[in-house]
Amino acid sequence: MDLYARLRDVADFPSPGIAFKDVTPLLADPAAFAESIARLVAPFRDAGVDVVAGIEARGFVFGSAAALALGCGFVPLRKPGKLPAAALGVDYALEYGSDRIEVHADAFAGRGRVLLVDDVLATGGTLAAAVRLVAQAGGKVVGGAVLVELDALGGRARWVVPAPLHAVLHIA
Amino acid sequence: MDLYARLRDVADFPSPGIAFKDVTPLLADPAAFAESIARLVAPFRDAGVDVVAGIEARGFVFGSAAALALGCGFVPLRKPGKLPAAALGVDYALEYGSDRIEVHADAFAGRGRVLLVDDVLATGGTLAAAVRLVAQAGGKVVGGAVLVELDALGGRARWVVPAPLHAVLHIA
Repeated sequence: MDLYARLRDVADFPSPGIAFKDVTPLLADPAAFAESIARLVAPFRDAGVDVVAGIEARGFVFGSAAALALGCGFVPLRKPGKLPAAALGVDYALEYGSDRIEVHADAFAGRGRVLLVDDVLATGGTLAAAVRLVAQAGGKVVGGAVLVELDALGGRARWVVPAPLHAVLHIA
Repeated sequence: MDLYARLRDVADFPSPGIAFKDVTPLLADPAAFAESIARLVAPFRDAGVDVVAGIEARGFVFGSAAALALGCGFVPLRKPGKLPAAALGVDYALEYGSDRIEVHADAFAGRGRVLLVDDVLATGGTLAAAVRLVAQAGGKVVGGAVLVELDALGGRARWVVPAPLHAVLHIA
């Protein structure tokens, strides 16, 4: 199946000059969604993953289904102030300003082998912050998986853990 | 399995006097997560569901896995300004102020039978807004499914479509 054909380019979103890769047509298509998840997790079936950690919000969509497909648990990495119990956080720089992701301090207690999942790897800033956050909470990143890697943005260079980073689709 | 034991009460979140039902311990437990999703979708296996629509953000976690389990597609119902293509929206009242959810205008094109999924049914305002939003976008709600229903808050009374509303867990 041609999953690329299920992506939609939306011009000038979220800001002028950006061509946004919209994954919603792929998600809505039952066969494309199932195949995407199968291909997302395929390299990690024997990696001993305890939990998939998904990055809010589109990473929740791919991460949760990936966790079900792998038979493991799911941990949400959330925007600030959303987690009810004691949480840890990592601040990271954006092109303009900064952002922060948080995780429950006990999220990886007894389940430390973590597969990080997000929808798109662009500049890699969010994923790099997620790697730091997992380590801070005592987890070990055993892999990363994204649906789409935007190769030209070079985000892969910021993946500095000794574990595979897998992209189902590559866009030049 | 006792799924109730995998919920965590967090006092005074998001505001004083509220006892928040934290689903993250359940999500992190592989067996509890898998059983939750199986029980969430069980009544709808023969309902001819085309897509699961999940409400941002925790509804993405349960909705996406539910879609994979049912072999159908997933449609995100999002907070304002998050969807890249042409979208429709519904405003709804909160205790203080208001909120809004949006969906792509073409989200249900050719896939109109919709199962709505969220994590918790409380006062029912968000779910009622989601019902209106799906109708506005041309979809037909064939069911609703939540992990936890907070019975005392009476949100079920606001479910006005002729389709089943299923809760895996009930809290008085």
